[in-house]
Amino acid sequence: MPPPVTAVLDASSRWLPARLGEVEERLREVVAGHGDLLGEDAVATLAAGGKRLRPMLVLLCAGEPGGAASVRAATAIELIHMATLVHDDVLDEAPLRRGRPTVAASSGRPRAVAAGDLLFSRAFALLADAGERRSVELLAEASVALAQGELAQRHDAFDLTISEQRYLDRCRLKTAKLFECACLLGHDDEQLRYFGADVGLAFQLLDDVLDVAGPPERTGKARGTDLRDGTITLPLIEAARADPGIREADLSGLDAAAAEALCDRIAATGALDRVRGRALEMVATAKRRLEQASFAPEQRQLLGLVADGVVQRYS
Amino acid sequence: MPPPVTAVLDASSRWLPARLGEVEERLREVVAGHGDLLGEDAVATLAAGGKRLRPMLVLLCAGEPGGAASVRAATAIELIHMATLVHDDVLDEAPLRRGRPTVAASSGRPRAVAAGDLLFSRAFALLADAGERRSVELLAEASVALAQGELAQRHDAFDLTISEQRYLDRCRLKTAKLFECACLLGHDDEQLRYFGADVGLAFQLLDDVLDVAGPPERTGKARGTDLRDGTITLPLIEAARADPGIREADLSGLDAAAAEALCDRIAATGALDRVRGRALEMVATAKRRLEQASFAPEQRQLLGLVADGVVQRYS
Repeated sequence: MPPPVTAVLDASSRWLPARLGEVEERLREVVAGHGDLLGEDAVATLAAGGKRLRPMLVLLCAGEPGGAASVRAATAIELIHMATLVHDDVLDEAPLRRGRPTVAASSGRPRAVAAGDLLFSRAFALLADAGERRSVELLAEASVALAQGELAQRHDAFDLTISEQRYLDRCRLKTAKLFECACLLGHDDEQLRYFGADVGLAFQLLDDVLDVAGPPERTGKARGTDLRDGTITLPLIEAARADPGIREADLSGLDAAAAEALCDRIAATGALDRVRGRALEMVATAKRRLEQASFAPEQRQLLGLVADGVVQRYS
Repeated sequence: MPPPVTAVLDASSRWLPARLGEVEERLREVVAGHGDLLGEDAVATLAAGGKRLRPMLVLLCAGEPGGAASVRAATAIELIHMATLVHDDVLDEAPLRRGRPTVAASSGRPRAVAAGDLLFSRAFALLADAGERRSVELLAEASVALAQGELAQRHDAFDLTISEQRYLDRCRLKTAKLFECACLLGHDDEQLRYFGADVGLAFQLLDDVLDVAGPPERTGKARGTDLRDGTITLPLIEAARADPGIREADLSGLDAAAAEALCDRIAATGALDRVRGRALEMVATAKRRLEQASFAPEQRQLLGLVADGVVQRYS
């Protein structure tokens, strides 16, 4: 288990690991249930798992009384997340994800597109079968945002003139909305909505810092991978303020070495620390919101640990 | 408007064209509402429309009392259908759909994958916002089947040993299930479920006949296009019974001329008439089911016309 997850599990009483185990089991069932169509490699990749941050947020916001409904919602949101990863890998032609071949790489892009659609549909089927009207609504809204965010990213690709505001709007759609949804699926509360949104945004900012900072042996990908795909991130926007020449970079023409050099140039402006600082501020704001939501003390403490974990990655 | 649609509209009283107009308007709103992200060409392609068979089935099964709920369900099911077409075009690298550039061709595959996800999500959001629990359940179930059918098709591609049963199972998942869903969305009745499934299966059989029979100026694609993609269809399976040498064909190595020659060889066995005959039988069975469902006479008559229209294409 990755560090943020471990810290939360260590601090929690027994219901949380038990529920996370149930989510894991459910995910495995869904994936293995389509094994003949997905193929062995794809099943292995999908079942290999990730940090399960979104399911953890659902379960923690729901708390111990959340019961089977919270396990279902946690499974559904992770299925949506997995679907977007499978589709992202089709688009990015990435060979590896979490150190394993992507579904696109192992089964081909056509099957990966369909596999993503399948995971997506299964998420809605899971909630709909249980009659969870509000949950379906929240998940559908978040899925719309995800696709809009993905489209915005493609639309703005390689455009070095995009503003910080546009970057932040895109991250809210592409990343923060699903964190927000996770919290609301657990407990429909306005403070939790903002908590999720802030933590999600911080998560994306940190992800963008890691793309520039590496190290590759921790992130699992070469430095500057996103930049070479044309994704304009806050570290780049921030760095260009101090060093306007960065705006002249031809991202589409970068080879691996040139991408590393651009990363170094971005880092030299101090942009990474500034973006990291903003992410930390967002997390602090998010944690203050927890004080205004009505919770068992354990829930508040554990949600705080998840928020901390998001910014402690590789730092 | 294509012929089957025209026949139904001509025979119907005013509520049906009015409702279909509302569906069209809703679809346009959804697509145009994301115009800045989807791009002008994609919006034009998506708004250009098709036969709208599935929305028509929803509206007809619901009947005049179906009201706004039936318009919503009809819009949602067409959004799902559009999403699968957009994704299919990514996979098949088809340049044209309904005589217009596909979204994949006009906006690139990455944006097309995201555009499909967006349409998909909007369908669920539309029903979830209106609190249509049973409709969400039906649509999610059909979407799962669609993706399974797509995966089955990829899994079986180029395998000339697949059985008729496996072909029929795949068509049920990939095509018939959404027709069935359309009928159930309109009116939750077991006879309508089977009516939809039979009509959908007949539709797919005829589609597979048209791939072999053409003519290209009516179907909009070269004869044997699906065969060259490795899709094993009933005309091929049926033809190989009379002419076993067909099973030796190397589909992956066919150029356009060789594909036409294979189509001629399939046609020479009389397979096309036999498959057409089976589709007609399915439609006759479907129409008999209508007699067992409780309906206004106009609904029964119009649903019969839709069923007839499905097999009258280009014949």
